Amino acid sequence: MTDRRAAIQSGDTLTEADRASLYRVLLSRRDVRGQFLPDPIPDEVLARILVAAHYAPSVGFMQPWSFILVRSPEVRARVKTAFETANAEAAAMFEGERGDSYRALKLEGILEAPVNICVTCDRDRAGPVVLGRTHIPTMDLYSTVCAVENLWLAARAEGIGLGWVSIISEPALKDILGLPKRVVPVAYLCLGRVSHFFARPELETAGWTRRLPLADLVTLDRWDGEHDPALGEVLARVQAGADNGTMD
Amino acid sequence: MTDRRAAIQSGDTLTEADRASLYRVLLSRRDVRGQFLPDPIPDEVLARILVAAHYAPSVGFMQPWSFILVRSPEVRARVKTAFETANAEAAAMFEGERGDSYRALKLEGILEAPVNICVTCDRDRAGPVVLGRTHIPTMDLYSTVCAVENLWLAARAEGIGLGWVSIISEPALKDILGLPKRVVPVAYLCLGRVSHFFARPELETAGWTRRLPLADLVTLDRWDGEHDPALGEVLARVQAGADNGTMD
Repeated sequence: MTDRRAAIQSGDTLTEADRASLYRVLLSRRDVRGQFLPDPIPDEVLARILVAAHYAPSVGFMQPWSFILVRSPEVRARVKTAFETANAEAAAMFEGERGDSYRALKLEGILEAPVNICVTCDRDRAGPVVLGRTHIPTMDLYSTVCAVENLWLAARAEGIGLGWVSIISEPALKDILGLPKRVVPVAYLCLGRVSHFFARPELETAGWTRRLPLADLVTLDRWDGEHDPALGEVLARVQAGADNGTMD
Repeated sequence: MTDRRAAIQSGDTLTEADRASLYRVLLSRRDVRGQFLPDPIPDEVLARILVAAHYAPSVGFMQPWSFILVRSPEVRARVKTAFETANAEAAAMFEGERGDSYRALKLEGILEAPVNICVTCDRDRAGPVVLGRTHIPTMDLYSTVCAVENLWLAARAEGIGLGWVSIISEPALKDILGLPKRVVPVAYLCLGRVSHFFARPELETAGWTRRLPLADLVTLDRWDGEHDPALGEVLARVQAGADNGTMD
């Protein structure tokens, strides 16, 4: 009995204040490409951010992630070159005005940020048969992404900006970082203190695309199911608040 | 100038208290399979949880997610049957004692939880060429997982338990929910108030596997790079604290 009781969280583990804080962190998180300051991230801060990632959910408690801290200017220069190659290819895929807008965007802070982190997924970490991955083989990749999101939120709460660089060839990245075949580079992240965080996503401010009305994305029981009008009204109101940075 | 200033978060957006709260939420989040109470989730709470998901990062600000709220007992019964089929197949993949342990685990709360949510990814939402998805086509799936993790943390902060059901055939789930071909059911979640949250992951308590030492998973500059001894010491200390539910 004692053991079982000990294994239960006390009823007041979390408070109203914790809830409000979580929402503040979620709403102030940004994808940071500029504004990095060169100061190194102290080990204490980095450790908390990495532990936050490590306490993400994982399929079958597999913990398939690893973290490569890229501080070396040489390695970062190679990653930057790989980004530039991919980014030129990407820019060519957008036509006319859209291409011009694309080329005007700053999309990474690989060299300016004091540290980059590659979050990887070792698909063989727990052997071939993993509880919960038997029918959806991508579950380990999804677990790794949960770790990335935890890391991102922790970074924001520590005042650290983070940007996810996805315009890069996976084979190039694997080669630069020496990843074995079985290991997937799920996310390449740039982290550092910043001069400021923007209030809104940069792609929204730049007019690249707009925030969708959430109520349109919520249906009942089926993909083409009904929209619950009462819930839709609440969703619209809560989203309007979130758009102004508050969740009440 | 005014516009640019308005677009910047004020320096004191987040406090030390917010940081501590975020870590409390991260460390008390559990994958919940039992302990669900039947009370419905109020619309206000559900709306905040869904908005938290909607404010996740997404590649190219694509927001590829939708949310199907599954309340219908008939639909949930069909999902439960699909789980049971998959779970019997899964159990057969674990041999001997491991199979017995597997069969003793409760792995979902599809019928007991008052609501299930399927979080989907519409791969065509922003057309064929998406900023940031040009070289890593799975980025939209990863964005959707970020939304799932935000949703999960918000649920925990609201006192709502959440369990991710991954032992299910994707085609079966697509059929039951009427998903178009282009839409991926990234996560099938069970949500509801709970009698209690466990202090540790159930697979850890059951001895299925153990929490890995994070310091072993952090290397410098390359996959087979060195471990930073100073950082490793801090990581071990912070992880020991997290294991007891605190991040100091």
